[in-house]
Amino acid sequence: MLDLLLNHLTVVTMDDDDRVLKDACIGVRDSRIAFIGAGAPAEPAARTLDCTGKIAMPGLINTHAHAAMSLMRGYADDYVLQEWLNDHVFPIEAKLTPDDVYLGTQLALAEMLATGTVSLTDMYMHLPQMARAVEDAGLYGNFSNAGMCFDESSYCFDTDSVTKQNREVLARWHNADGGRLKLDASIHAEYTSFPALWRDFAAFARENGLNMHVHLSETRTEHENCVAKYGKTPAAVLAENGVFDVRTTAAHCVWITDEDMDILAEKGVTAAHNPVSNLKLASGVARVAKMLEKGVNVSLGTDGVCSNNNHDLFEEIKLAAILQKGVTGDPRVIPARKALYMATRAGAYAQGRERQLGQLSEGFDATLILIDTDRPGLLPVHHPQSTLAYSARGGDVCMTMVRGKVLYENGSFTTIDMERVRAQLRPVLNRLFGA
Amino acid sequence: MLDLLLNHLTVVTMDDDDRVLKDACIGVRDSRIAFIGAGAPAEPAARTLDCTGKIAMPGLINTHAHAAMSLMRGYADDYVLQEWLNDHVFPIEAKLTPDDVYLGTQLALAEMLATGTVSLTDMYMHLPQMARAVEDAGLYGNFSNAGMCFDESSYCFDTDSVTKQNREVLARWHNADGGRLKLDASIHAEYTSFPALWRDFAAFARENGLNMHVHLSETRTEHENCVAKYGKTPAAVLAENGVFDVRTTAAHCVWITDEDMDILAEKGVTAAHNPVSNLKLASGVARVAKMLEKGVNVSLGTDGVCSNNNHDLFEEIKLAAILQKGVTGDPRVIPARKALYMATRAGAYAQGRERQLGQLSEGFDATLILIDTDRPGLLPVHHPQSTLAYSARGGDVCMTMVRGKVLYENGSFTTIDMERVRAQLRPVLNRLFGA
Repeated sequence: MLDLLLNHLTVVTMDDDDRVLKDACIGVRDSRIAFIGAGAPAEPAARTLDCTGKIAMPGLINTHAHAAMSLMRGYADDYVLQEWLNDHVFPIEAKLTPDDVYLGTQLALAEMLATGTVSLTDMYMHLPQMARAVEDAGLYGNFSNAGMCFDESSYCFDTDSVTKQNREVLARWHNADGGRLKLDASIHAEYTSFPALWRDFAAFARENGLNMHVHLSETRTEHENCVAKYGKTPAAVLAENGVFDVRTTAAHCVWITDEDMDILAEKGVTAAHNPVSNLKLASGVARVAKMLEKGVNVSLGTDGVCSNNNHDLFEEIKLAAILQKGVTGDPRVIPARKALYMATRAGAYAQGRERQLGQLSEGFDATLILIDTDRPGLLPVHHPQSTLAYSARGGDVCMTMVRGKVLYENGSFTTIDMERVRAQLRPVLNRLFGA
Repeated sequence: MLDLLLNHLTVVTMDDDDRVLKDACIGVRDSRIAFIGAGAPAEPAARTLDCTGKIAMPGLINTHAHAAMSLMRGYADDYVLQEWLNDHVFPIEAKLTPDDVYLGTQLALAEMLATGTVSLTDMYMHLPQMARAVEDAGLYGNFSNAGMCFDESSYCFDTDSVTKQNREVLARWHNADGGRLKLDASIHAEYTSFPALWRDFAAFARENGLNMHVHLSETRTEHENCVAKYGKTPAAVLAENGVFDVRTTAAHCVWITDEDMDILAEKGVTAAHNPVSNLKLASGVARVAKMLEKGVNVSLGTDGVCSNNNHDLFEEIKLAAILQKGVTGDPRVIPARKALYMATRAGAYAQGRERQLGQLSEGFDATLILIDTDRPGLLPVHHPQSTLAYSARGGDVCMTMVRGKVLYENGSFTTIDMERVRAQLRPVLNRLFGA
C-alpha cells in the first residue's frame, strides 16, 4: 500500500535519462519514491492527490547561504564591499545573540521552503541555533561555523570557540534524523586565516567524516593578494594543505584560473556559483561554462540575502543560464536542463546526498516541489524544463514536500509558525537596528 | 469627497524629492491622486482601504514588448539567433491569425497586470487586435506595427499593409480614452529596411504627432554591418533620416558607441534596456551606466517572452541594477532608487506620459501597485526602495490599480476572463504547434 499517490503530473525527473513524463504518477511509501511513471502503479494508495496543471521536480538545493543574515535583508545596499562589511554588516553581527540566529535562520528557511528549496549548505555563527532551526523546520541542511583568525600567535584550534561549537554540534546533530542534518567543517577563506588553521580544520573534517565548506577567490583582490603572499592561488594553497581531501564546496570561484579548475575537477570539489551576489557586490562573473567544460561540478547558491536580496533559487537558475550566454556570446551554453541540474543533482553531490536527493527516481527520498503552471506567467508550457528554468519564479511553487511530508503549501507552513516569527522579529529588529 | 482612501501605507513616491512616506495615505478622486501624505486628508472618503504591511509605488512601465509572442513562451530556447528566428519563430508567426494576436496579447496583459505593469510599449503584427486587447484590458499602451521591407523595388508606403493598419488604428484608437491608448510609428530596425522607408515612417510620425519605436544596435553583427554599408552607425543613419525627430524609444542599444549616446541624449531618445533578453540571446550587455552618465533616458523592457521568458518587470529592475555593478566593478552604480526610476519615470517619459504616470503625486493618475511585504521573502523592510528593487518579484504584487480602478487583486482580474483565455488557448496551440 502506497502512503500517497500524486497523479496527472508532468514530471521533470532529472534522472540519468533526463526523462520528462506527461500525465504521470509518483507513489510515495515510507518517505521514499516507490513508483514513478506515466502509467498507474499496481499498488493501491491510502491517499491520492490530483495534480493536473502541476509540474513536479526535485526540490532545489542551495549550496551557499548565510541564512540568519535575513535579518539584514536590504539593510545596506549599493556600497563598496569593505564599507558594506566594516560599517554595516560587522557592527550588526557583533550584536547578534544565539536566539537572533535561530530567528533569522527560521525566517530564511520559511522563505526557502516557500520558493522550492529543500536543502541548504549554510555557514554562519552560533552554530547550535542554526542546527536547531534546520532540525525544527524539517528540511535538509549541511551547516558550519567557519574557522577564521587574523592573529596566528593567539590561535589555538582546541580552545577556539568555533571548535567548541563544532564539537557540540558534531555530538548532537551530525547525521541526525537519518542524515537529514549534517555538520560541515569550514574555513572562512584563504585570506582570513593561515596554513596552520587550514590543516587543523582539514584534519578535523577527515577524522570525523565531514564535508568542507570554504569561500574561494570571490574577489580579484583576495585572489591576487594570495598569489603575492604565497606565490600560489588560493585553490592551490588550500589544496596542498589538505583542505580539498574531503568532499568540498568552494563558494564563488569568480577569479579561479584554468589550472585551479583542473584542481577542483581532480579533487571533486564543487564550485558553488552565486551569480546574483557576485554581480550585486561587483565581484565579477564566474567562468561557469569553462568550469563545466573542464569537468568541475557546479552547483548554485544565493549567498546571504544581504547581498542578493532573497533566497529564491529560481532566480539563480535563470541568471546562471543567461549570464553565461551573455558573457560567452553563445546562447546554447547552459541550456535549461543544465541550469536545473546545477540546482538539483550538482547540489546533491556537493552535500553528499546524491543517493537521496536531486532526482525523482524510485528509491530516492520523496522530496519534491510542485509548480502551478495554471498562471498567466507560465502559460503555455511547451517544454517543462524551459518553463522551470526561464519562466518560473519561487512564487510559482505551490507545494514543497520533504520525505513525503508537506512542509509548505499555498502560503502555509506546517513546521514554521510565521505569525510567531513576525511577532518575534519586531523587538529583535528594534534592538539590532534601533537608534 | 474622495472616492477612495488608502491608508497605513508605506509609499515610494518616485516624485521629484524622491520621498518615501511611512504610515501614509493616498486619496483618489475622479481617477486621479487628490491627496498624498503622511497625515490624513481633510476630505472624507466614500471608501477606505487599510493597507497595513503594503508598499505602494507607481505602476511599472514596460517599454519594449512583443506581447502576443506569449504564445511561443519557452517554445525554442537555447538556440543561436538566426536559427531561433528562421527555424522556430518565423514559421509560427506566419500562421498567426488576428484572433491569435488578440489572445496572445490578452495572456501577456494578464501576466503584466499580475506582476505590476500598468503600461506597455508594444511592437507586433495585426495591430488592430493588439489595440483592442489593450483597450479591453484597461491598462495604458503605446502600440505599433513595424515598417520592414527587404526589397526596395517592391516598396510603396501608401499601399503597404502596415500603413493600412496604422491608418485604421490612428483613426479609431490613437489617443482614445483620454490618451490611455496611443499609436506609435515604428521602424523595425536599420538592417531590415532602407532610408526611403525610414523617411516615410518618420514623416508619418511627425505629421500625426506620434512617437517612434525602433530596434537599435541589438547585436554586434547588425551594428557592424551598418557601419560597413553606410559608413555610419545605425543611430547616426536613422538620426540623419529624421527618425529621431519625434519622441523615440530605441530598444536594446547594446552596441551603440559613445557618439551614438550623445545623439540619443541630444535628441531625447529613450534607450529601452532589456537585460534578460540581451543575455539570453547572447546579444551582450548594454553600457547603461555610461548612457546614464551621458544623460540618456534609460527605461526597461522585457522584450518578447520568447527571449525572456516572462513579463515580470521586477526581474529587469534587479538585473539592470546588479548587471551594471558586475560589469563595471562598482557596486554603487545604479542604486535601488535609480533602477526603480528606470521602470517608472523613465518609461513614462518614453511613452509621452510623464504628466500622468511614473510617480505618485497629487494630480497624477491614480495608477499604482501594492506590494505585500508580509511574506518571508520580503521581511524585514529596512529600506522600501531596496525591498522593491532587490527582494520583490512580480508575484509579490497584490493589487494593480489603473486610474483608480482595480484591474488585478490577489490572483483575480477584473477586465480579463482567465478561464476563457485558458479555454481558448488549447485549440490555438494545437493549430499552431500541433503535428
